[in-house]
Parts: sequence; C-alpha cells; structure tokens
Amino acid sequence: MKIVDLRTESWEKNSELLRIKNRGQGLESKYAQSVLEIIENVKKFGDSAVFSYAKKFDKIELTPENVRVTEEEIEEAFKKVEPEVLEAIKVAVTRVRKFHEHQKENSYFVTEPGMLLGQKVTPLESAGIYVPGGKASYPSSVIMNAVPAKVAGVKKVVMITPAIGSFEVNPYSLVAAKLSGVDEIYRVGGAHGVAAIAFGTESIPKVDKIVGPGNIYVALAKKFLFGTVDIDMVAGPSEILVIADESANPDWVAVDLLSQAEHDELAGSFLVTHGEEVAKAVIDALEDRLKKLKRREIAEKSIENFGTAFITRDIYHSCEVANIVAPEHLEVATKEPFALLDHIKNAGAIFLGHYTCESLGDYILGPNHVLPTGGSAKFFSPLGVYDFIKRSSILYVSKEGFKQISEHARNLAECEGLEAHRLAVEVREAIKIPIKTEEKV
Amino acid sequence: MKIVDLRTESWEKNSELLRIKNRGQGLESKYAQSVLEIIENVKKFGDSAVFSYAKKFDKIELTPENVRVTEEEIEEAFKKVEPEVLEAIKVAVTRVRKFHEHQKENSYFVTEPGMLLGQKVTPLESAGIYVPGGKASYPSSVIMNAVPAKVAGVKKVVMITPAIGSFEVNPYSLVAAKLSGVDEIYRVGGAHGVAAIAFGTESIPKVDKIVGPGNIYVALAKKFLFGTVDIDMVAGPSEILVIADESANPDWVAVDLLSQAEHDELAGSFLVTHGEEVAKAVIDALEDRLKKLKRREIAEKSIENFGTAFITRDIYHSCEVANIVAPEHLEVATKEPFALLDHIKNAGAIFLGHYTCESLGDYILGPNHVLPTGGSAKFFSPLGVYDFIKRSSILYVSKEGFKQISEHARNLAECEGLEAHRLAVEVREAIKIPIKTEEKV
Repeated sequence: MKIVDLRTESWEKNSELLRIKNRGQGLESKYAQSVLEIIENVKKFGDSAVFSYAKKFDKIELTPENVRVTEEEIEEAFKKVEPEVLEAIKVAVTRVRKFHEHQKENSYFVTEPGMLLGQKVTPLESAGIYVPGGKASYPSSVIMNAVPAKVAGVKKVVMITPAIGSFEVNPYSLVAAKLSGVDEIYRVGGAHGVAAIAFGTESIPKVDKIVGPGNIYVALAKKFLFGTVDIDMVAGPSEILVIADESANPDWVAVDLLSQAEHDELAGSFLVTHGEEVAKAVIDALEDRLKKLKRREIAEKSIENFGTAFITRDIYHSCEVANIVAPEHLEVATKEPFALLDHIKNAGAIFLGHYTCESLGDYILGPNHVLPTGGSAKFFSPLGVYDFIKRSSILYVSKEGFKQISEHARNLAECEGLEAHRLAVEVREAIKIPIKTEEKV
Repeated sequence: MKIVDLRTESWEKNSELLRIKNRGQGLESKYAQSVLEIIENVKKFGDSAVFSYAKKFDKIELTPENVRVTEEEIEEAFKKVEPEVLEAIKVAVTRVRKFHEHQKENSYFVTEPGMLLGQKVTPLESAGIYVPGGKASYPSSVIMNAVPAKVAGVKKVVMITPAIGSFEVNPYSLVAAKLSGVDEIYRVGGAHGVAAIAFGTESIPKVDKIVGPGNIYVALAKKFLFGTVDIDMVAGPSEILVIADESANPDWVAVDLLSQAEHDELAGSFLVTHGEEVAKAVIDALEDRLKKLKRREIAEKSIENFGTAFITRDIYHSCEVANIVAPEHLEVATKEPFALLDHIKNAGAIFLGHYTCESLGDYILGPNHVLPTGGSAKFFSPLGVYDFIKRSSILYVSKEGFKQISEHARNLAECEGLEAHRLAVEVREAIKIPIKTEEKV
C-alpha cells in the first residue's frame, strides 16, 4: 500500500488524489451499440428475443413455462439453508425493515386564503430488483433492495437473476427474497433481462423502476432505459476510506480495508491519517493479514490499483480529503468521531467509532448497504424508501384565490408568447365569460 | 379532436389508449454515437472542443473571455424588461421559494442500547441548469429550476444557455436567473454544453447535478452522463389531461387543452369525461378557439397527433383512464374534485376545480412546473428541493451494541464467502484481539 504525503502539497496538484477523485468518470461507450441493439430487440420481439439472448449468453433454454421461479423451488431453498444463516437473514430483514420505516414520507399541504397547495405521496405500483447470478450468493443484497420497496408500499416487487448454465437459483437469494416480501422471481439477467422488465414481455411483467447492481451490460441497459423506467444509481466497484488517529487499532483498520479489497480488483481501500506512524502500523498489519487471506490474489491486485494511505496535516485536513474522494463507505476511527460529523460532506455511509466496522452495516445494522460509488456520494444517496415513492403536486384555487394572482400569470404568459396560456387566465377573469357559463360555474 | 368511447371496450384492447399509454417509450438510439463522441471530445479537450462545437452548431465564436455572461449584461437586461413583467417575475420567485421551503428535509437518527443509526442531509455543492436558447424566452423555467436548488442550500448554481448566432442571452432569462439566485451564467448549450458542466473545462465549472429541458441531443447527453453527475428526469413534450363532468365550462376546458397544444406538435391534449355531451361541447368550443389562435398551425397538428376525447362509464372510470395515461398535468374540472384525490395515482401535478387552470401553476402558484412527461409520472416526481440534497447514512455502535449483533453479521459474511468481512467482526469480538489493542481501544 503506497503512502502519499499531502502535508505540504495542495491536493489539486497531487496526481494520486486526482486519479482517485476522477475514478468514477469512465464511460464505456464501446458496449453502447450492442446494448442498444439488445434493448431494441427485446422491445420488438419480447420473449423470443429474451430467450434467445438467454441461450446465447447464459447457456440456458428458457420458456414461458420455466422462466418464473416456482413456490416449490422456494420451499426447497429453505431446506438447503443452514439454521444460523436463516436466523441471521431473519434478523437482518427485521432490522432493515425497522430502520427503513423511519424513511416513510407523508403527503402535505399548505393553505392561503382561497388556495390549497401541496404534494401527494404515492408508492410506485411495481419495482424490479436485479440480483447478480453465478456462484457468488449475496442474500444481503436481496434484502437491501427489496425491503425498502415493500416498506414504501410497492404492491408488486419482481426479482430477476440470471440462472447461468443451470436452472437452479441460489437458495440463499431465494430465502432472502421470500422473507423480504419479493412477489415474483424470474431466472433471467443481463441487458436482456433488464429490458424485459422495462418493457414487459408475454411472460415477464413490466415494472416502474429497476434497482440493483450488475455488470457493465446491466449498468448500460439501465442507463439507456432511464426514462422508460426509473433506475437507481449506477453502481461501480466498492470502496472504503478510513480516517484514523492514534486511538485506532491498526489491525482492525487493516482488516476493514481488506474487506473492500477482497471484493474486486478495482475496489478502493483508502487510509487517511495525520499520524505517520499510524499509517505505517496499519500498512504493516495489512501486509501481514494479506498473506493469510483466501482471496489474496484479488485483494493484492486491488491494493495495487486503488490502495493508498494519505498523510494529512491534521484531522480536519483528513475530513477534507475524505470529501474530495467522496467514498461509498467512510469509517471514522478516531477518539471523538461525532465531533467530525459536521466536517464530513460527501460519503455514502459514515461508520463512527472503533467498533462500527463496515461489515456490520453491510449485513445487519439496518441502514441500506446499496450506496453511491465512484465519487457519486457527492450527489447520490443510499437506496431508501424515498426511491420507491413518487410525488404529485396538488393545486387548488377558489374564485377568490384566483383573483389574487391571475394578473401576474397573465403577464408572464404574455411575455412568453403563449396565447392560450394567457386566454386560460382571461376567460376565468370574467372579462370574456358569457352569462351562461357564469351561471354554470 | 377525435372521440374514443371506452364505455364498452376494455382499455387493454383500445389501440388509441395503448398508443397514448406507450408514448414515452421512444429510444432515439440513432443519435447515440454522435452524442457519445461529443462527450468524449469535451472530456478530452475541454474548452477547445466546446468552443469548436459552439462554432459548428451555434455559429458563434466563443473564447474563455466571452463565454461567461457579465454582471454588466445582467444589469442591461433589467432595463429591457417591462415593469409589469419584472413585477410578475418577482412575485413568482417569492411564491415558488415560499412553497419549496416546505420541502426541506432534516437529518434524523434513532437509537437502541449501544447504537445510533440515522441519515445526515447535505445540500449538493453545485448544480447546473440548462435553459434552452433561441427566440423563445421562458423566464418561468429559469425560476422553477433555480429556486429549489437555492432553497436546498446549493452554494453554486450555474446556468448554461446557448447564444445562437448572437452573443445576447435572452434578457427575461437573465433577470429571472438573477432574481432566482443563479450564481454564474455561461452562453453555451447543446450536448457539448452539458458535457462541459459535467466534466468541467478550463473556463466552465464542473457541477454535481444537471437539470432542465433541452432537445434530443441535450436529453441524450444527460442520460449518458448520468453517474458522472446526477440528472433530473428526461423531459418530453408537454401534456394535459382534463377530467370533466357536466359542471365544467366547455370553453374553459377547451382553452386549457389548447394551452398544451400550442406548445408543440407532439404535445398531448386529452379530455376524459363520462358525459358524451360534455365531450361534444368541449370539442365545439375547441374548434372555435382553434380558428382564432395565433399558433393555430402548431396547435392543429398537435390535436391531430395527440388530441383525444375519451368517453367513460363514470367518473371513477375517468380516474382509471387518467392513471393509465399518467399525464404531466391533470385538471379535475368536476363538482367535487377533492373527492377524487384518492383515486388518482399517476400525475405530475393535479389541478383541482374550475378556477385552477394549468397556466396558474405554470407561472405563479408556487409548486414546480418541471414535471414528469410521457407517462413517467408513474415513477418520477416534480422537480423539488429533494432533488438538490443527498443523504449519508450514519452508523454507530459501542462495544456493548456491537456484542448484541456481531454474531449474525459474522454468519452472513461466512455465508457470502467474504473472509475479511468476517474477520472484521471477529477481531472485534475479542476472540483474536492482542492485549496491546485491548488497552488501546
């Protein structure tokens, strides 16, 4: 893990920090055309297109009869899951639901003489959750995507996940889906799976919003279909940034950094500290832990690519660096973490204190683990209940309310050269209202 | 305006309603490559790319010295605006700000023994507003995009608008921008303008989020840059749907329908009523008004393309049809409009009662006029303060809090095969903590 000293240099001039700051700005346009073609074909040909792509990419023969996962399969899955894991999944679902209940929003209105203005909150009717397939099983990801939708009041939550080579869907995912309240599950994935739930096909339902992580094809398909449906943030490789002072346990920090590095060769693991010896101690512990790690190869490459220890002037300078990086996960491993909260502007989730390791948040605490990556914490939020509702503005004026403001609306319509907009006001200003309609209204 | 009778036919079988329902699913992939090329070039070459595209598309010679609109130009603009329009703009800014103040959100937290969980709300640092250029002037659009950003607490609001052929930017837009609190204005537009504020160039600043309507090039650029920055909804042609009963004034309804039709040949104007004679009366009034309209040609084409009167079984059936169309603007011109509010699920803005014409909402009432189009009211919301803030999750556990839940996190990490995630829990479970660190923490 390389050390970068920011004590003397201003960050604008530091190439390593700039490289990390701009990590999220890639635009894989080389896949654009093929993904657009997949989308067009699924839109035109529905099932037949989806099933032929499934055969081509996932090596599986799908039919309208077998594409949906059956209740029997789900019951079977429950038998395959170890008791302690089933218990953990239940606790996670309960805690995640409990936390997200606090994100529910109310409709609201305000009044003025002769006026009522507000917004009505309505849950989306349907939502689609993308769950990556293959060998890796991430029940926690199913929980974190499905529970907020159900808490929001979404009636139909549809999960899609590719069954690659075999029909079996990962049992942990099925159990998590069932316990999270997922309503329908389809064994289809990739850009063609995303397009299928965006438009709907003969055997796969259309949804209003698509959430969940996937490979570059899935990410591009979501991006291109934004507008046809709503989508969540564009997810990239996972990241952690740890702000540490001398009170931190170097071994604990090292393991937390590795818990990102083991995810992905492009994952980011950043240490920021004003204590040079803290940095050295963490790096020693990290090298030590790295040797014994099962996923050593991935973790090592990851640390090579995006593993950096930044030395800062003081703890506030450390917060500045964190804000520039805008990490997905930010651990504040310092004596007084709450004292720094006002200084931290950009982070997906902020883990305060020595015992709050990221894994707790990933699995069990309650806040969502679907978080903005690649620096997008500057403008994106964690996935939440607010992602599964929409607002409709409410406007009402009485005849009296109308009279108080009609003149200004008329003048602006005039200025914008929109005659009928102006007329709509004038006919109601009783200037040109025939007696008949006066009686009527 | 054609009449479609839905009293006997189920809507799934009605081709006209299906055509309207799916109006928003176009995917103009034919422009994709050229827009992606523009984005790549602006990212690589900054100013020089932006300025050469401005020369090519907008026929204007931009330089780092002249691209930004000066304070002098803004002062000049104030002299050009008529007093009654200036007054109307001031009233609009005040009312829009007042309404949007109610959308501010608080950070929140909940506690459990040894735990604190919550979310911190932070305004975006910067936002970019796209304002279409050319002859048409839409000060109201500047207000509706800029005010929510400033109410949210965005420090730097940047407006871009193309100066096509001449350097002068529309004075109404400049005045509206100044009064709305816009901080910087640049005379650049198109896909190259959007890319410029997405990446930042030598003379144009980078922003965190880009909002505002534009042509297909602007819309695609925003879509492709989603992730590099945040964007608002994808805006399409404007639409109105009026639910009317016998209490409605046919002439008023007709003028309201035309106030959409005059916007754009692809704008939608839909009447939904269970009274056949109401439909006939509205259509007569509409034909009559149409003859005298300045923008007659546009409005006529628009009514041809997307002008339909639906006859329904009863007023609740009318609400169902409205929910299927999910219009940008929904007027409820009935005797008891508030009684129908629960039945209305999908609409950008709902105008209740005979006096609440859409123009009032477009200009002066306070709620935002940037609304989801093309049926996206099923999942998008009006632009609001909530579009200019982001949330960071807050997680804290003490040693005691940690002990209560660590086991389940460990089991899930184990199940997902993430060793370092499990280790991060185990080292803190004091199983493997060396004495030294026990003292330390």
